[in-house]
Amino acid sequence: MRWPFISRIIGILLVFLGLAMTAPLVCSLHYKDPAQTGIIQSIAITMFTGLILMVLSIKYEDEAYINQKEGMTVVALGWTAIGLFGALPFYFSPEFSSFTNAFFESVSGFTTTGSSVMTNIEDATPSLLFWRSFIQWLGGMGIIVLSLAILPFLGVGGIQLYKAEVPSPVPDKLTPRLSDSAKILWMVYAGMTLLEILFLLAGGMPLFDSVCHALTTMPTGGFSPKNASVAYYNSVYFDYVIVLFMLLAGINFSLHYQMLRGKSLAFWKDTECRFFIGLTLVCTLVITLDIYGSVYDSLQDAFRYSIFQVSSIITTTGFATADYERFPGLSQVILFVCMFIGASAGSTGGGMKCARIIVCFKYCYRELFKLIHPRSINHIKINNTVIPDHVLRSIMGFLALYILLFFVSSIILASMGVDMLTSLGAVASCIGNIGPGFGTVGPGENFAHLPAMGKWLLAWCMLLGRLEIYTVIILFVPEFWKK
Amino acid sequence: MRWPFISRIIGILLVFLGLAMTAPLVCSLHYKDPAQTGIIQSIAITMFTGLILMVLSIKYEDEAYINQKEGMTVVALGWTAIGLFGALPFYFSPEFSSFTNAFFESVSGFTTTGSSVMTNIEDATPSLLFWRSFIQWLGGMGIIVLSLAILPFLGVGGIQLYKAEVPSPVPDKLTPRLSDSAKILWMVYAGMTLLEILFLLAGGMPLFDSVCHALTTMPTGGFSPKNASVAYYNSVYFDYVIVLFMLLAGINFSLHYQMLRGKSLAFWKDTECRFFIGLTLVCTLVITLDIYGSVYDSLQDAFRYSIFQVSSIITTTGFATADYERFPGLSQVILFVCMFIGASAGSTGGGMKCARIIVCFKYCYRELFKLIHPRSINHIKINNTVIPDHVLRSIMGFLALYILLFFVSSIILASMGVDMLTSLGAVASCIGNIGPGFGTVGPGENFAHLPAMGKWLLAWCMLLGRLEIYTVIILFVPEFWKK
Repeated sequence: MRWPFISRIIGILLVFLGLAMTAPLVCSLHYKDPAQTGIIQSIAITMFTGLILMVLSIKYEDEAYINQKEGMTVVALGWTAIGLFGALPFYFSPEFSSFTNAFFESVSGFTTTGSSVMTNIEDATPSLLFWRSFIQWLGGMGIIVLSLAILPFLGVGGIQLYKAEVPSPVPDKLTPRLSDSAKILWMVYAGMTLLEILFLLAGGMPLFDSVCHALTTMPTGGFSPKNASVAYYNSVYFDYVIVLFMLLAGINFSLHYQMLRGKSLAFWKDTECRFFIGLTLVCTLVITLDIYGSVYDSLQDAFRYSIFQVSSIITTTGFATADYERFPGLSQVILFVCMFIGASAGSTGGGMKCARIIVCFKYCYRELFKLIHPRSINHIKINNTVIPDHVLRSIMGFLALYILLFFVSSIILASMGVDMLTSLGAVASCIGNIGPGFGTVGPGENFAHLPAMGKWLLAWCMLLGRLEIYTVIILFVPEFWKK
Repeated sequence: MRWPFISRIIGILLVFLGLAMTAPLVCSLHYKDPAQTGIIQSIAITMFTGLILMVLSIKYEDEAYINQKEGMTVVALGWTAIGLFGALPFYFSPEFSSFTNAFFESVSGFTTTGSSVMTNIEDATPSLLFWRSFIQWLGGMGIIVLSLAILPFLGVGGIQLYKAEVPSPVPDKLTPRLSDSAKILWMVYAGMTLLEILFLLAGGMPLFDSVCHALTTMPTGGFSPKNASVAYYNSVYFDYVIVLFMLLAGINFSLHYQMLRGKSLAFWKDTECRFFIGLTLVCTLVITLDIYGSVYDSLQDAFRYSIFQVSSIITTTGFATADYERFPGLSQVILFVCMFIGASAGSTGGGMKCARIIVCFKYCYRELFKLIHPRSINHIKINNTVIPDHVLRSIMGFLALYILLFFVSSIILASMGVDMLTSLGAVASCIGNIGPGFGTVGPGENFAHLPAMGKWLLAWCMLLGRLEIYTVIILFVPEFWKK
């Protein structure tokens, strides 16, 4: 492990983070809000630490050839460092009483979770609200590179390997080709964000609100500058626009790229995309029927609130237009299950990912098939590509770890005096990078009342989910640190 | 598939069931209770159907050589038939208003689940209460053969294969050796039941109550002839006696056999047994500290109620001495997780089984280890025996199916208008063969108020859990029925 090399990379990340903080500074100057001093302090601390880390550490000649162990350490520590320093603008503002709260909000932002500890969002300065949205957008950018290039390169996750026609084939090293494909995908990402801003503006949403919502829809983040989230506007048009962009954000970004290249059937030809859209529609239909009559008197309303909540949860965005804790049991159980499923691999969404769920179904079916035909040899295929055995093992291990860590984290959270439903709901929400949970952290509430230790635990869960579990948990395996 | 052959076996099973019904008949004659007519009717119907099935179907010469497909069909249909006909004594008694309720109680009995729809247990006739306990005891006997011989022979479950020193090696066919080892294990089972009766009598429990409780402790069943379950006696002595026998029932029966053969360290040398006992102690300790002060003022009481509830849930017995829904969140989450873990493989307990959980942990660790040392070859061992790859796959498939079916069944139950917590709790309890759940089916309540369709669903969940999932679910795979 070349620590100076790692600290150098983290230093570079912090310098970029410091540069990113100039955006809320500009916002602050424009709105003449009192947050300027805090932001300038944050920039100073972040840039200074970043430069120190860069200057003090050696530049290796073969620095492009980062190895797997270093890669994992960089990913986990880098994301943590960004969470810590990204918390500074929150910490320096009067809305945040403790660094715990600031760190929670920051990690929730960068991991695109969207759980909040802010009790009165609308009282905050515009620059703080902008920063809150902007970090989700930056987090989403990070995830695109992470899930399409870094994690497959590190051998983690094992989903991307079978994806046909990713813009760049899985690189052996972090080669320039990666940055080419990242650029293309970022342009798709930025383009869709811009498109959403225009759509929202066209419907009459103020510019600031449009920007904030678009910045948090595309990364499936879910922070809103309004206390009531999207419900504030109570607009059919805004609801459907946001549903559309949430669903687009939940689709593998390489499919968007294929669409732009003129392959108009790309969505339809992809197994995972069909599953994701199909599942969203089925859940929407069932919940519509469940809440029609019992919660909403008109079928249109039932459909509108149903598709919004389903899209918001399954893409792991977390916007709210209704309090699903007031829905009947069926709708609640479906949304709870959706929290685990999550969006597509290669999208900005979280959760277990549809691709892994499909593989898990096929794995189970293969076991049943083997009982019927013990000597048969069956390969599991997705999109007509055979999934190699080691990838299968990696996926099943991922799912098992996900469930294990969900239960362990829920027990730890409950040990801090949190009730059962809230513990299970909060952990499911944070590990899946969703936002709202169940119990006292439902869509109508926030995470402010949880104990401080619970917030650190949940922030850890967010990182766990965001970095596909293996990358974080491996740092806690003693074997990793042996020479 | 030789249907006449299968119907013959089921016929034999029903004749034996009819013979077993003479036990409550004797009980009824002794107590001179009004249930006689109903029991005689039940015997007549069951025996008649059994004989018809036997007589009408052909006796094959090579009947000993049952094949795998037929074996699975026999197991699933046989258990269902026994549930249906075992329900007759309930159906003919005034306590049961519908066949649905009678079937639910019967399947809950034979699968040793212990969930009840009886709202006033103490008003029932002694012979009915005895039948209720007796079917659990018979179910427990069935499970011993099932888990030690039939399922491994069918290639299902895949746990037993690595167990060192099972009394009989896994037979290729159902050979006479199986009945030898089954006899030994049944003697252990019957001996321990007798011992428990004596222990309970020594503490002053009436003979009838002692017999009923012992008959439902050893199969980890949990039916009690009292409305308040074991809490009725409010006796420290009874609590600890029952805890002892619940834990014994949760240990692999082949280890008991080894102990009897003089291998005094058998429990200690077995990885799964250490895990099971260790986990029980850790959970007990944590819950003791959690409820001490908050629910109970004395540490002794806290420990006593904690170890009882933990043993009852983790062994999947389901007796109650306290309403754990009034415990703090931590205790509830721990008990909820214990519902999934369950007892040891080869015991009469249900759930996922400790052995599979251990394998799952090792599987996850191996994936992490592989990330650190990509070229390493690691075998997963338990008790110094390597688990073959196909067994590993079978175990991971089992765990995935367990979770998938848990979620799917919860959604279906919720679609019948049941609230979320009750849906999740009832399904977890029934698929794990435990008894009480959460929400409105907690240890202080019963299952009577659930919709009729919900009871059929839960009875199906009980069979699913009891027959190790594969055996039941495979009948729903179209491929199984192809020639």
